Amino acid sequence: MKIGVLGAGQLGQMLALAGIPLGLRFRFLDPSDSPCAAVAGEVVRGAYDDPAALDTFAAGLDVVTYEFENVPVATAEWLAERLTLAPSADALLRAQDRVREKQFFEAHGLPVAPFRAVDSLEELAAALEVIGLPAVLKTRRLGYDGKGQYVLRHTRDAEETFAALGGRGLILEAFVPFEREVSCIGVRARNGEQRFYPLTENEHEYGILRRSRPCPGDPLEAEAQSAVARLMTALDYVGVLSVEFFVHDGRLWLNEMAPRVHNSGHWTLDGAATSQFENHLRAICGWPLGDTGVLAPCEMFNLIGGVPPQEALLALGADLRVQLYGKSPAPGRKLGHLNLRGRVDTGLRQRLLALITAAANG
Amino acid sequence: MKIGVLGAGQLGQMLALAGIPLGLRFRFLDPSDSPCAAVAGEVVRGAYDDPAALDTFAAGLDVVTYEFENVPVATAEWLAERLTLAPSADALLRAQDRVREKQFFEAHGLPVAPFRAVDSLEELAAALEVIGLPAVLKTRRLGYDGKGQYVLRHTRDAEETFAALGGRGLILEAFVPFEREVSCIGVRARNGEQRFYPLTENEHEYGILRRSRPCPGDPLEAEAQSAVARLMTALDYVGVLSVEFFVHDGRLWLNEMAPRVHNSGHWTLDGAATSQFENHLRAICGWPLGDTGVLAPCEMFNLIGGVPPQEALLALGADLRVQLYGKSPAPGRKLGHLNLRGRVDTGLRQRLLALITAAANG
Repeated sequence: MKIGVLGAGQLGQMLALAGIPLGLRFRFLDPSDSPCAAVAGEVVRGAYDDPAALDTFAAGLDVVTYEFENVPVATAEWLAERLTLAPSADALLRAQDRVREKQFFEAHGLPVAPFRAVDSLEELAAALEVIGLPAVLKTRRLGYDGKGQYVLRHTRDAEETFAALGGRGLILEAFVPFEREVSCIGVRARNGEQRFYPLTENEHEYGILRRSRPCPGDPLEAEAQSAVARLMTALDYVGVLSVEFFVHDGRLWLNEMAPRVHNSGHWTLDGAATSQFENHLRAICGWPLGDTGVLAPCEMFNLIGGVPPQEALLALGADLRVQLYGKSPAPGRKLGHLNLRGRVDTGLRQRLLALITAAANG
Repeated sequence: MKIGVLGAGQLGQMLALAGIPLGLRFRFLDPSDSPCAAVAGEVVRGAYDDPAALDTFAAGLDVVTYEFENVPVATAEWLAERLTLAPSADALLRAQDRVREKQFFEAHGLPVAPFRAVDSLEELAAALEVIGLPAVLKTRRLGYDGKGQYVLRHTRDAEETFAALGGRGLILEAFVPFEREVSCIGVRARNGEQRFYPLTENEHEYGILRRSRPCPGDPLEAEAQSAVARLMTALDYVGVLSVEFFVHDGRLWLNEMAPRVHNSGHWTLDGAATSQFENHLRAICGWPLGDTGVLAPCEMFNLIGGVPPQEALLALGADLRVQLYGKSPAPGRKLGHLNLRGRVDTGLRQRLLALITAAANG
């Protein structure tokens, strides 16, 4: 089978590396110059809304999916008319816009922090009246890795922040003073079967994920899985769905969802019986899902901005799995990740963190 | 780093799939039409002794290795003059010729069944006199998967078998009535560090490997590892070395070695902390070696001649890892393998074997 993937970044690369052994072959659509998924599949270079590129991309594919959710819904719909598309354009539509997304969460009885759509300074003032401070002003669309959002702490900053974010298409959300950030990754097959990876605890810095650690049996796991189940069922979803939550006062608050494999699931490559990448492919191909259980204790560290020397990493002597994406280094850019497997002592963990930090700053 | 690989079959494909996450990129040299490693690297199509193809292949590579040992030694030597080649041309030379190989084993005090080089009917008669019957007549070079060898049981068959095998460049070996076939895979780093995977028990049918199962702690493990250690040290070896043994009367007899990753090590992809493919790459790149310990119990089944339907395999519900090579089916051709991980009950194992057998015969 030939799988088409919208986007050709590291998630696409890892999808292909997981799918090639299953006999799948890949074609990517991406506007960028030398996308990193090119090492494991064919790339059609073009804009996501370029009809000629879409024609070339679609020819002969069996299934189309995303590794990047900011593709035009019209593109997804065009593809869905011609091919099997999974997840659906509907799931994409709801995930692309923070207001629709939160309305969707609310409509299914799931807890979200108060929010208001904001398209003018008047609406911002009215929203601040209801939501109070601190609050978070974000673009409704296209934000990622902490981009396109600011925490508002003083009313006097509202106007400037509003302007900095473009002055329309925004959302004001109550700030959740969370104790923890967690995510839950579910996968749903074409026949409706659902499976869930263990709840994962995530640490962000400046809005970028730094570390993830599965916490099977966490007291909030069942509730998180049930929230993801409700969303997948509502969407008649096919594939991997990733949902991020805040934990505040011991309760879960839904933050956002991604209709694709997710950075907080990279530990599954080495720590789960079946990785999120393989399970996403199994789902969209109509195959039975794989075991989502933990194979070995595992902790994931993102490599951001720089990569430590390979020799130094491998010389740590631990069961450290290195995954580099082949991207050129730049500040704040995700260049790879490490999965540290097995029981880990504090000294080793500190030596590893020191290497990661030195590379990020170097 | 850019790795050159002589040969572009499934071993090359799996080397590349293991190396891409480590940031390595691959170029293959192979004379065949649509080699299966092409999905994960660049392929230079050409004969192994074609100077123009070799020039194109070698340009810009950092390290060259093999996934196939029947390449001309002159090619390996030409490459070694220009680039880092590992394992060495010397290791290749000894592995290519069954007589040199067994002389090499003997020279290092390792047990081999009696053998004689045979280039004429007179030499065959003399060899049969010494070795007796049954015996195995083989080509010295280019044999694999049971090809190029016959068991001689009656003197009257000698002449015909001799002719069928080409009438020169042969070896007569005493037939070892083995109880078990085992293999040991070792890896040696540039700095001389050596590591070993657990002893693996193998089942062949008609000369083709069907199943492999690691047996860590087997009573013969230490002796097998020490034999591989002696060979690697003698060759100042860099990379993975695979050695096959017969077990007869509870003792090890060396059968043959391969200066590369080996089918009997495919279980390491899912059952060992570091796969044989990754450790081969780490060694030839001059990086520290990875843990060769068992991650989970695992048994490997080759898919020969046919591949069961993906849905049926994945629906078994077990922790079954599927690896297909993307080759077109043909009788006796290795098309993929399965790693069955975890504790397995007899019923599951039988259902799996039934699927594999049905596909092979279908």
